[in-house]
Amino acid sequence: MECTRLTLCDIGNSSFDFFRDAKKEKIFVADYELQESDEKIFYICVNEKIANRVKNFANWIDLKDFVEMKNYYETMGIDRIMGCEAVQNGVIIDAGSAITVDVVKDGVFMGGYITLGLYASHVAYKELSSRLTYSYNFEIDLDKMPKNSRDALTYGQLGLLYRDVLGYSLPIYLTGGDASKLKHIFKDAVLDEELLFKGMKNIMKKANLC
Amino acid sequence: MECTRLTLCDIGNSSFDFFRDAKKEKIFVADYELQESDEKIFYICVNEKIANRVKNFANWIDLKDFVEMKNYYETMGIDRIMGCEAVQNGVIIDAGSAITVDVVKDGVFMGGYITLGLYASHVAYKELSSRLTYSYNFEIDLDKMPKNSRDALTYGQLGLLYRDVLGYSLPIYLTGGDASKLKHIFKDAVLDEELLFKGMKNIMKKANLC
Repeated sequence: MECTRLTLCDIGNSSFDFFRDAKKEKIFVADYELQESDEKIFYICVNEKIANRVKNFANWIDLKDFVEMKNYYETMGIDRIMGCEAVQNGVIIDAGSAITVDVVKDGVFMGGYITLGLYASHVAYKELSSRLTYSYNFEIDLDKMPKNSRDALTYGQLGLLYRDVLGYSLPIYLTGGDASKLKHIFKDAVLDEELLFKGMKNIMKKANLC
Repeated sequence: MECTRLTLCDIGNSSFDFFRDAKKEKIFVADYELQESDEKIFYICVNEKIANRVKNFANWIDLKDFVEMKNYYETMGIDRIMGCEAVQNGVIIDAGSAITVDVVKDGVFMGGYITLGLYASHVAYKELSSRLTYSYNFEIDLDKMPKNSRDALTYGQLGLLYRDVLGYSLPIYLTGGDASKLKHIFKDAVLDEELLFKGMKNIMKKANLC
């Protein structure tokens, strides 16, 4: 079967994100009745509760079983791995509740890290002090050192990320819920909301699943 | 009067930090009775509540009044300004509940930023996910990309800070409650718990107060 005709699903903590016929469909966990059917669904899952249920259904096929884990590490999120499988050379930034950053060179995972998501760090600043309640300035020029409070806070999260990511001198790929916000910072980055699905397809091709 | 014989006080949110006869003394806010006396005390204060009371006492002299603010910006913390006044060339890292980073070149403030303190970011990670509860690894080699979860979290906060700070190619000064922890990361840094008092003395010399 052609890879493009298959149904993929990225199961997160809050939603089932399906990819069928080049279209994405998001269904919140509470609204989706997980059940066996005739349709083969190739999935990844970071939601432990659902992982324990979905494995009982023969038509749901866990793509984690087809990953060559020696290229990664045991506790690495399967979503990060799919991001890495999607590109040959690049820095992959998946900006969700946490922001993960992974570096791939010549198809090999070089390492990566996790930092706080935009909302999480904003809340943490606010909890520290009433003087640190500024929203981030996405129009900031991060090549200059800040000389006002709002930019000082913005730089302390986004500027540090920016300087690190640019240091790899590799193409930058943005995905995840806050990708479009980060696009203001990483102006030359490729914004690709289907990046993880591309990684899933690449795994399936390698495993001759399609 | 010689600068060394004067009494200095750095009033924070939780304590009065005195500096007399080359010795520091910390008295928690709840344990200190603020009152007028014959002893001149030169202070800085980031505690708004106490700032409103201490200004009524003639023997307490606010060093903020002697700072040339055109070198800084209006909402910049007076503690950060004192750190900057202490050095001619350097990156000053004040690691407390927040971590502030300021750059001074040839005695001129170039800009600076604020990021989350070690405890605040650790708590924020934990609140995001039960998978992100690792303590920071202060023995990490930050010149390598992480390939395990604990290092991935550590790098996401401390590694980004490390790479930014080293980029200025200036001497690094560490102060604040978590300075000794950060010394593991910034091995060549000068750890100076009296840095802000040095800045206060420099301000006093410039203003001919001693």
